[in-house]
Amino acid sequence: MAFHGMNEPLMDFVGDWLDDGSVVSARGYRAAGVACGLKKDHGLDLAMLVSDQPADAAGVFTLNKVKGHSLVLTMQRIDSGPFRAVVVNSGNANACVGPQGYEDAREWAEAVGAAIGCAPEAVLTGSTGVIGKRLDLEALRRGTTEAAGRLAATVEAGHAAERAIMTTDRVPKEAALRFAVGDVGVTIGGMAKGSGMIHPDMATMIGIITTDCVIDPSLIYRALSRAVDQSFNRVSVDGDTSVCDMVLLLANGAAGNASIESGSAEEMKFIQALTQVCRRLARLVAKDGEGATKLIEVCVEGARTASDANRIAQAVARSPLVKTAIFGEDANWGRILTAIGYSGAEFDPNGCDIAMGNLPVCQSGNALIFDESRAKEILKADEIEIRIRLRDGEASDFYWTCDFSYDYVRINGSYRT
Amino acid sequence: MAFHGMNEPLMDFVGDWLDDGSVVSARGYRAAGVACGLKKDHGLDLAMLVSDQPADAAGVFTLNKVKGHSLVLTMQRIDSGPFRAVVVNSGNANACVGPQGYEDAREWAEAVGAAIGCAPEAVLTGSTGVIGKRLDLEALRRGTTEAAGRLAATVEAGHAAERAIMTTDRVPKEAALRFAVGDVGVTIGGMAKGSGMIHPDMATMIGIITTDCVIDPSLIYRALSRAVDQSFNRVSVDGDTSVCDMVLLLANGAAGNASIESGSAEEMKFIQALTQVCRRLARLVAKDGEGATKLIEVCVEGARTASDANRIAQAVARSPLVKTAIFGEDANWGRILTAIGYSGAEFDPNGCDIAMGNLPVCQSGNALIFDESRAKEILKADEIEIRIRLRDGEASDFYWTCDFSYDYVRINGSYRT
Repeated sequence: MAFHGMNEPLMDFVGDWLDDGSVVSARGYRAAGVACGLKKDHGLDLAMLVSDQPADAAGVFTLNKVKGHSLVLTMQRIDSGPFRAVVVNSGNANACVGPQGYEDAREWAEAVGAAIGCAPEAVLTGSTGVIGKRLDLEALRRGTTEAAGRLAATVEAGHAAERAIMTTDRVPKEAALRFAVGDVGVTIGGMAKGSGMIHPDMATMIGIITTDCVIDPSLIYRALSRAVDQSFNRVSVDGDTSVCDMVLLLANGAAGNASIESGSAEEMKFIQALTQVCRRLARLVAKDGEGATKLIEVCVEGARTASDANRIAQAVARSPLVKTAIFGEDANWGRILTAIGYSGAEFDPNGCDIAMGNLPVCQSGNALIFDESRAKEILKADEIEIRIRLRDGEASDFYWTCDFSYDYVRINGSYRT
Repeated sequence: MAFHGMNEPLMDFVGDWLDDGSVVSARGYRAAGVACGLKKDHGLDLAMLVSDQPADAAGVFTLNKVKGHSLVLTMQRIDSGPFRAVVVNSGNANACVGPQGYEDAREWAEAVGAAIGCAPEAVLTGSTGVIGKRLDLEALRRGTTEAAGRLAATVEAGHAAERAIMTTDRVPKEAALRFAVGDVGVTIGGMAKGSGMIHPDMATMIGIITTDCVIDPSLIYRALSRAVDQSFNRVSVDGDTSVCDMVLLLANGAAGNASIESGSAEEMKFIQALTQVCRRLARLVAKDGEGATKLIEVCVEGARTASDANRIAQAVARSPLVKTAIFGEDANWGRILTAIGYSGAEFDPNGCDIAMGNLPVCQSGNALIFDESRAKEILKADEIEIRIRLRDGEASDFYWTCDFSYDYVRINGSYRT
C-alpha cells in the first residue's frame, strides 16, 4: 500500500520555518499576556495583540447556533476593518449571560481602544473558558492597562500572549513561516489554543494568525477559509464544537512587497504558506487534545467522492472505541472497519485495506495475520498513522485526532467546579 | 417547567410485568446457555433458543455497511420462515474473515438443525465479540450438542441463555410482560446484550424477543420496527454502531388467542406491549453501558420538528463532554447548550430552558443562579434526567445514554488483546 503519511508534506513547501516563531514574528506586531484574575490558578488570562499600523482582517467563526458574546462582537465588526488590536481572555467564555455579555465585550473593546490609542471599533475580542458566568470587567480593565504597557515584539511577549489564551492546553502552539514574494521576504505567524471541545464544521478553537504581507484585502478571507478547511477543520478531539471558536487573520502590509493580486501565482503561494502555518498549529492542537498521549492521523485514499473520503476519515477519528484502543496500544482494526461502515459513506467493504503505520492489518475487508509485536511497537509511538485504502475511486482526505485516555475523563469530570 | 420524566410512563400501560421474566416466559419456548470455549474467561458463550412449534419471525439489523457473517445469514433467511431456533455466540463476532465466515455460520446452523431435529433453514444465527477471527466450529458443535440437551423453559435456563450472549455487560437484561388479547393472556418476553458499540440507526445490540401471541405474520415486522424505533434506537453508549447488531422477534402462536389482525385495537395493544418490553431492555442497555456509573435520560420538548427534537436529544446524549461532566457530578449545563447548538437542529437559543432533574439551571439560553449543593445531590443519583425545553414548536423526543468514566477507557483500551 502506498499512502502519503504524516511525515510527507501534503503540499509543496514554500518557505522556511522560523525558530521561536510566533504571532509577533511578522513585522509590525506587538503582543502581551498578563494575569488579571479570571483563571482559578491565577495564570496568564489576558492576551493582547496590536498591529502598529491598521491591519486588514478576516475571520472564520463557530457554526454552533449558540455563540459567545465576545465572538458575536467580532463577527459584527470583522467586515468593517482595518483593525489595530485583538484581545482574548481565557478563564471565562463570556457566553450565555444575556445582553450584558455583549455590552461587557463592547466595554472591554473601549478600554482597549483607550489603552492603546485607537477607536473601539478597531478592536476585536474573543473569550474562552467557562460558560454562563459574567466577565469581571474591572479585572479586565486592570489587565488591559497592564498588557498595553507590556506590549513587545519579542519571543517572550509572543509566548506570553499564547499562554494567556490557553485553557487545558499543556503545550504552547506557535509557529511562523517566512517566504519570498518577489524579492521581498514576508512572514506569516500564529498562535492557537485547544484542547477540548474540538471538532470541525468551523474554526474549532481560537487561532490568531498575523502576516506583514501586502495583499489585496478582498483576498484574505478566501485565503483564510481555504487554509482553515485544510487544517483546523481536519481536527477532532471529542466531537464537541465550542460556542467561542474562531480563527482570525490580520494583514498589516508592513513587509512592503508588491501587493498580491487575485489569481496570481503569488496568491497561491500565500495560500499555501498560510495553510502550512494553520496545519502546524492544528496538528499541535490534535496532539495536545485533552488527556492525549498520542497523535492519530487518519489517512483515506481511493474513496468514491471527496465527501465519502471526508466522512470516513471523520468517523474513524471520532470513534471513542478506536481512540481508546489506540490509547491501549491495541491494533483493533475491527473497530476502524466498523467506523468506516457506519460513516454514511458509500464504499465496498470488500475493497478496504487498513494499515497501522506501515503494517497492513486488514486486506479486502478481511483479517490479515500480522505480527502483534510489530503492531505493539508501532502503537507505542506518540504519533500513529491509520491508513485506509479503498478501491472505489480517486478521492482522499485526512483527519487528525488523539487517543482517549483516563486523563480526558479526569479533566472533563471536574472542569467547572 | 413540566416535562415527562423517566419515572412517568411514556405510554399507557397495557399489562403486568412478570417476576423473573425472560425469553422463555412466553409459552412454547425453551432455552439454554453453555460454555464452549470461545470466551477468554471460559464463561457461557453459546445461547440457544428453541420454539417447540414453528414460529414466525421478524428482524431489524445493523445499518453498518460492514456486516458480520452470522448476521448476513439471518438477514437472508428472515423472510422465509417459520423458524425453530435462534443461536447466538459471544466471544467472536464472526465478522471480516472472508467467505469462510458465512460458510461457518451455515455449518453451525446445520449442526443446530441436526441437534434439535429441524431443517437448517429454520435456524437463525448471531455472533458478537472480537472482529476478524474465525469461529472455532468444533467448539460450537460441541456446545450445540450440549445446549440441545439442556433446553428448558425454566427461569434458570432463560438466565443462562442471557448470560451466554453477554460480552462486557455487567448485569443481565431480561423482561417479560403479560397482557390480555380478548380473554386470553399472552406474553412477550425478551433478552438483550450491550454494552459497547451502542448507537442507533439500527438495532444497536443483540435483542431477542419471544411471544406466544397469535398474530398475522405480515404484522410482526411493522410491530418490531415501531417498537425498536422507540426503544433500542433511542440508546447511545459511545456512538459506535456494531457490525453484528440485530433485534429478532419470534411469534409462535402458542397462546391460542384470536389472531391479531391489521388495524385492530389489539394490534395497537400488541405494539405498545412490545414497545414496553423493548424499552425496559433498552434502558438496561444504556444503564449498563461500558464503564457507566449513571443512566442519563435526555428529554427534549418544544422543538420545531420531530427531526430537530431527535437531533438535539442525540447530540446531547453523544457529547463526551456532557457525559464526562455527569460522571464528575458537575452541573455543567454550558456543555449541554453547546451540544444543542451544534446538533444541526433549527432552534432559538434564547428560548432554551435546561433543567437537571427538577432543578432549572438555564433559562432562555442564559445562566440561572442555582443551588450547587442541590445540583450535587441530584447528580449523585444513579439516574439523571437532563430536561431541555425549547419554544420553537410542539415536537418532543428522548434519548438514553450513560456517563463516560475511567472504566470506559480501561475496558476499551484492552478489549482485544
